[in-house]
Amino acid sequence: MPIRLDAKSTAFPDAFATFLASKREASTDVAVAVADIIAGVRARGDAALIDYSRTFDRVELEGRIRVTEAEIEAALAEVPQDTFEALKFAKARIEAHHARQLPADERYTDAVGVELGQRWTPVDAVGLYVPGGTAAYPSSVLMNAVPAKVAGVPRVAMVVPSPDGVIAPLVLAAARLAGVDEVYRVGGAQAVAALAYGTETIAPVDKIVGPGNAYVAAAKRQVFGKVGIDMIAGPSEVLILADGNANAAWIAADLLAQAEHDAAAQSILVTDSPVLADAVTRAVEAQLTTLPRREIAEASWRDHGAIILVGSMDEALPLVDRVAPEHLEIHADDADALADRIRHAGAIFVGAYTPEAIGDYVGGTNHVLPTARSARFSSGLGVYDFLKRTSILKCSPASLNVIGPAAVRLAEVERLDAHGRSILIRTNAG
Amino acid sequence: MPIRLDAKSTAFPDAFATFLASKREASTDVAVAVADIIAGVRARGDAALIDYSRTFDRVELEGRIRVTEAEIEAALAEVPQDTFEALKFAKARIEAHHARQLPADERYTDAVGVELGQRWTPVDAVGLYVPGGTAAYPSSVLMNAVPAKVAGVPRVAMVVPSPDGVIAPLVLAAARLAGVDEVYRVGGAQAVAALAYGTETIAPVDKIVGPGNAYVAAAKRQVFGKVGIDMIAGPSEVLILADGNANAAWIAADLLAQAEHDAAAQSILVTDSPVLADAVTRAVEAQLTTLPRREIAEASWRDHGAIILVGSMDEALPLVDRVAPEHLEIHADDADALADRIRHAGAIFVGAYTPEAIGDYVGGTNHVLPTARSARFSSGLGVYDFLKRTSILKCSPASLNVIGPAAVRLAEVERLDAHGRSILIRTNAG
Repeated sequence: MPIRLDAKSTAFPDAFATFLASKREASTDVAVAVADIIAGVRARGDAALIDYSRTFDRVELEGRIRVTEAEIEAALAEVPQDTFEALKFAKARIEAHHARQLPADERYTDAVGVELGQRWTPVDAVGLYVPGGTAAYPSSVLMNAVPAKVAGVPRVAMVVPSPDGVIAPLVLAAARLAGVDEVYRVGGAQAVAALAYGTETIAPVDKIVGPGNAYVAAAKRQVFGKVGIDMIAGPSEVLILADGNANAAWIAADLLAQAEHDAAAQSILVTDSPVLADAVTRAVEAQLTTLPRREIAEASWRDHGAIILVGSMDEALPLVDRVAPEHLEIHADDADALADRIRHAGAIFVGAYTPEAIGDYVGGTNHVLPTARSARFSSGLGVYDFLKRTSILKCSPASLNVIGPAAVRLAEVERLDAHGRSILIRTNAG
Repeated sequence: MPIRLDAKSTAFPDAFATFLASKREASTDVAVAVADIIAGVRARGDAALIDYSRTFDRVELEGRIRVTEAEIEAALAEVPQDTFEALKFAKARIEAHHARQLPADERYTDAVGVELGQRWTPVDAVGLYVPGGTAAYPSSVLMNAVPAKVAGVPRVAMVVPSPDGVIAPLVLAAARLAGVDEVYRVGGAQAVAALAYGTETIAPVDKIVGPGNAYVAAAKRQVFGKVGIDMIAGPSEVLILADGNANAAWIAADLLAQAEHDAAAQSILVTDSPVLADAVTRAVEAQLTTLPRREIAEASWRDHGAIILVGSMDEALPLVDRVAPEHLEIHADDADALADRIRHAGAIFVGAYTPEAIGDYVGGTNHVLPTARSARFSSGLGVYDFLKRTSILKCSPASLNVIGPAAVRLAEVERLDAHGRSILIRTNAG
C-alpha cells in the first residue's frame, strides 16, 4: 500500500519531512570501473570501443562503428506509416514550441556612453546518448535532438548501443526526423568517453546530453569540465493536486502512467477530499489488474506511492512547493489560479484534460525535466541548453573617463595594481 | 619567456593543439578529506563548524557563527567614503545591466487550441561562498549577489571564513550593499556542507555559488544534486586580438592585469603584426619591473603566456574560437565586425578603450565567466542562474481529441500502455 499522510495529524510535519528525504535509487558506485573505461577509450580509441562492445553488447563493430545512411534508410522503411506520422506530428509540435524559446541578442548604449550587450551562439557539436536494449524510446530522441537543432547546433552526434547487434528502427527513424547528423552504435561509459575525447571514427563534441544507466551517468560526471553535460536524471515522478470534484478514474490512470516507467518512479496524490482519496485508491487497484506493465507499476505504487490529505487546496500549495515535483497535474475548478501560485515544478499540466502523457509525446513542451526535488533550482531541457551567452562591453575614450576612476579605486583596494594601471594608462594618455 | 607560435609554420597545427591541451592547474585530490568534512557537518551541525573553524581558521566561533548586524555596521564605518562610493557605483551598474536579463514569461494558445507556456521563478535560497584570507574581493560579492537579488531570490546567505578572526570590512560592506540577507563566518568544505544540508544556525539553501579553493570546489561537486551549483572556475585567462595599429603599451598592461591574478593565469596575444608582437614583449618586460605583484605576473607570463602570429586577422578568428577565451579583447580598426564573427568567448571587450579590468568592476556585465575553454558550451553568471523555468501545458477536451491519438500511438510503440490509457480514458469518455 502507498503511504497515506494527513496534514491535520500532529505527526505530519515529521512524516512529510521523512517522505521528502526518502531516496528511491540504490546508489551503485561504478566510478572506478567507469574511470578505467574512459582511460581505455582515451588510450586506444576505436579499438577500445570495439573491445568493450564485444564484451558488453556481444556485437562485433570492427569497421562498422558508424551506422550508415543505408542502414538508416532500411530502418525507416521498417517503420509503419501511422507510427512515422505520429513521430512527425510530435516533432513538428516540439519544434514549434521550442522555436519560441530562442532568446534575442541585445546591444545598447547606456547613459554615460558605454555600449553593453549579450549575444547567444549555439554549441558547435552535441553528443546525444540514447539507451538501447529492449525498450526503444524514439520520443526521447526527439526531445533531446530537436531543441539542439532549433538552437542551431551544426553537428548532433548520437550514440546508441546495439546489444546483440540490434538497434530499434524507431530510434533511427526519430534520429533522422530530428536532424541528427551522425549515429554510432556504441553505448555505456565507452560511448560517453568517445564523445568527450574523440576516437579515430568519432570526432569529439562540446556537450553531452541524454539519459542512461548508472555507468552512463557516472561517465557524464567524470567528463564534465572537458565537455558540458545536461542534468543527471533520477527516477521520474508525478504529483497530482485534485479537489473533491476530480475524476478518480482519470487520476488513477495518470498515477499508473507514471508508475509503469520504473519501480523507482513515484506517484503522489494531494487532495482535500478523503472521498476522492479512497476512490482513487480503489481505481488504481482496479486498473492495475489489466495493465501489461502491472508488476513495475504495482511495485512503484506500493513502495513509493503516496496520498496526502490536506485541509484545503490553499494548504496544499506549500507542500507541493516542498516536493518540487518533476510533473504536476492540477485537477480543480480553479486550476489556472492554483498553477499561478506554484513556485517549484518542472512542468505543470493544467486541468483534467491534460494527462501528463500528453507532455511526454506531443504537447510540444520538453519531457526532460528536473527530478528528485531539483525543480527548486533547475529547469527542464530547452533551447537554452544548447546556446551560450557572450557578454559584450565597449567603452569610448569619453565613457572610459567616466567609469574608469571607480574601477581604479576598487582595483586599489583589492590590491590588483596592474588592473588599475591598465585603465590609467588609457585615461592618463588623453 | 612565453611561448611564441607562428601560424605559417608547418609545426603550428600540432604546437597549437598541444598549447590548447595544456593544463594550468595542479589537480589536488581532496575528495576523501572533503567527504569526511561533509559527513561531519551533517552529523554534528554547528559543533562541527566550530571544530573545523578552530582547526583551519584558528578562530573560536562558539555562539558567534553568524555575523551580527552590529558587526556589519562597524565594518561599514571602517570603509573610506570614496571606496564605498566606488562600490555603490559598481553595484548600480551591475544591477542595471542584469535587470535587462530578466526573461519574460510566455503563455499562448496554438492553432489546435492547446495552451502552452513557460514561467520563470527565482530559486528560494542561495548560498554565496566568499574566500577569506589576505585578499578581499568585494567585487566578487557584488558579481554573485546582485544577479541573485535581481532575479528575486528572497534569501541570499553568505559564508566567508575568518582566519585568525578577521573578515575584511570591504567584503561585509559589499554584502550589505548587494542585499545579502545573512552572513556566516565559516569557510572551506564545512561551509559548503552547512549551506547544502543546514545546521542549527544555518538554514539550508537550494543553490550554492561563488569561487573557492580546491576544498570548496570539491565540496560543491559532492553536494551537487542535493543543491544546485554554479560552474567550477579554473584560473583566469585573456586573449588579446590586435592588428598592427594597436597600442603595444596598452596591450602589455592588459596582459599583465590578467597575469597578476595567479601564477596559473594565462595571457595570450594573437596578432598579424610581428612588429607589434615584439613591441608588446618589450613593453611587458618594462612594465613588469614596477609591478607590486611582479612575481606572480612574471611567473604567469613566463609559464603560460603566449604570442601567436597569424597571417591575417581573418585567419585569427578560428584560432580564437578554438581557445574559447574567458576574456577576449579586440584591438583593431574593425573591432566590432571581428567581434560579430567570434563564436566562442565568455566576454568580448571591443576596441582599445575597453581594458578587461573595466569588466571586472564597473562595466556592468558579470565578471564570473567560463574558463579553460568552457565558453564552448557554457555562459557567464547571470540572472538566469538564479531562475528556473516551469513549462505549462493545458488541453481542452477538443484539443486533447486532436493531439491525443498521436500520443496514444507513440505510447503503444514505446510499450507504455498506461500512458496511452491515461489519454484514451478521457477521449473515449466524451
